[in-house]
Amino acid sequence: MSSGSYVEEDFERDTRYINTRITADGTPDGYAVEPGRYRLVVARACPWAHRTTIVRRLLGLEDAISMGICGPVHDADSWTFDLDPGEVDPVLGVPRLKDAYEARPDGYRPGVTVPAVVEIATGQVVTNDFRQITVDFSTQWTAHHRDGAPDLYPEHLRAEIEEVAQLVYEDVNNGVYRCGFAGKQASYERAYHQLFARLDWLSERLATRRYLVGDHITEADIRLFTTLVRFDAVYHGHFKCNRSTLSEMPVLWAYARDLFQTPGFGDTCDFDQIKAHYYATHLDINPTGVVPAGPELAPWLSPHGREGLGGSPFGDGTAPGPVSEAERVTGANPLLNR
Amino acid sequence: MSSGSYVEEDFERDTRYINTRITADGTPDGYAVEPGRYRLVVARACPWAHRTTIVRRLLGLEDAISMGICGPVHDADSWTFDLDPGEVDPVLGVPRLKDAYEARPDGYRPGVTVPAVVEIATGQVVTNDFRQITVDFSTQWTAHHRDGAPDLYPEHLRAEIEEVAQLVYEDVNNGVYRCGFAGKQASYERAYHQLFARLDWLSERLATRRYLVGDHITEADIRLFTTLVRFDAVYHGHFKCNRSTLSEMPVLWAYARDLFQTPGFGDTCDFDQIKAHYYATHLDINPTGVVPAGPELAPWLSPHGREGLGGSPFGDGTAPGPVSEAERVTGANPLLNR
Repeated sequence: MSSGSYVEEDFERDTRYINTRITADGTPDGYAVEPGRYRLVVARACPWAHRTTIVRRLLGLEDAISMGICGPVHDADSWTFDLDPGEVDPVLGVPRLKDAYEARPDGYRPGVTVPAVVEIATGQVVTNDFRQITVDFSTQWTAHHRDGAPDLYPEHLRAEIEEVAQLVYEDVNNGVYRCGFAGKQASYERAYHQLFARLDWLSERLATRRYLVGDHITEADIRLFTTLVRFDAVYHGHFKCNRSTLSEMPVLWAYARDLFQTPGFGDTCDFDQIKAHYYATHLDINPTGVVPAGPELAPWLSPHGREGLGGSPFGDGTAPGPVSEAERVTGANPLLNR
Repeated sequence: MSSGSYVEEDFERDTRYINTRITADGTPDGYAVEPGRYRLVVARACPWAHRTTIVRRLLGLEDAISMGICGPVHDADSWTFDLDPGEVDPVLGVPRLKDAYEARPDGYRPGVTVPAVVEIATGQVVTNDFRQITVDFSTQWTAHHRDGAPDLYPEHLRAEIEEVAQLVYEDVNNGVYRCGFAGKQASYERAYHQLFARLDWLSERLATRRYLVGDHITEADIRLFTTLVRFDAVYHGHFKCNRSTLSEMPVLWAYARDLFQTPGFGDTCDFDQIKAHYYATHLDINPTGVVPAGPELAPWLSPHGREGLGGSPFGDGTAPGPVSEAERVTGANPLLNR
């Protein structure tokens, strides 16, 4: 995600997303599931986009939906394809994600955010509604899931997943931003207390169960993971979420390590891009643009001991295979140094 | 300390201090030890001034040398007595510490820093050389030490104290500032690696001995303590010293807690003023001026288990008594909430 200004008295996320859906039968918006028709555009840095890279990989949608990757540092104008040869996305043929937003006939203007799904033929963004994209990957693209793909959004658990995810969104996923972009002490402190109260609540919930909802990994875990994995590297210092580090919250830290060590999670993390994005883009809260060298990443691989809580990562499904050469992360990641 | 600009490509501390000395016999500068003649001016926030408040208290010099306390947030111009009634120091009768610098006939201009020792009759700063002030408290003011005052600068250990303290100064005390005020990535990274290499060296040294030099608390411990006590509250996030928190370095964390729990150390700490100073004064690295609410302070009181390493805090001396009512810290401090 990310666009526009950051620090405000009370940070309010602009949630006017393009809510066009890509569905199995193309209703109601005329965009049907079709391998090769769409390109997912992400940035490794962005926690909202990170959800889509995990889900796409767990479900094995890599061949059905290609992926373009923006660099970590964008200007006020747009995320850009500066990591690609010639700084142009090789499939969309454009240098800026903004070009795919401007290609839309409706003049959508709230901001240039990732994740975005672009229709390759028209070069137009179809949707940037991060809440819907992963759910549709799970529920609409089933014909193209890999063998052994897990059910990340099981019908009988959807209400509970959404209930938990909504609390996590308000207080944690978006809560860290409300801490970091608060322009006033009182706004910051409200967000801080809400964040840590929710993390305490999550610690309690996860003390006796391996995953957030049900006995296997679901959409709810993915949504929480992408914030937790950034916590000590970015949110603790840069966003002043400093009651304690993640590594000082034993239950959440073990939970996060468990997921990190599960194929599809840790192997989609690029800590260099994550840190570069926040520290070099938000110059209104880090004017020097200097990127912290810490924290150490090796502890992400330490044993988590959560197998004893029961459940299993993928239920009747299986873990995804290795990441394809082309999509392997290139920045700091303790899995790469083993 | 603190004055002038902060962020530079490579942060260089201005070390042109006024090195006039106050000595037992008044040589060579004409300033003799004399109870009631001088006023020590500090800020609770400042680690360099903090050294003097600890030493003064351990030696029982409170009645011989009175103390003025500047507020935590100063402007580009001066530390100020904004905590006092009428925002004027009740003894010196001035609102700004700068007034006592300007009262000097030599037009000293490098900056308005704490700690400063002011001659009350003339209203002039006699010295702001923080490296000398505490040593002279120990060695020149002996006639006015309390009964049971420890020897913080024993003659046979001075060479070793200075050797260790110099390494600690370069890499740790000043090293955290070189991390935080680095304007360039490379300068920051140099300082960061130097800092943590030294902290590792200190961890190793302190794994088998309770104090840095000899078997009792010395000047060397005091100099290290004032940086460690600020580490998680300020330097980890604000100055990007984030390889790990102090609380994640077990030896140093136990060592720091041991000192914190020793009379004269923890009871001179004001975490509110410490945090307010750094986060609200350095707007060039924290433009919003928002002050983090964390970290939690209660862990400072947890058992440290270092008694088994031998040695004793005060050797043949004794611990100081309780802080006088007038000098009790008013801000956040876990000792006050017990």
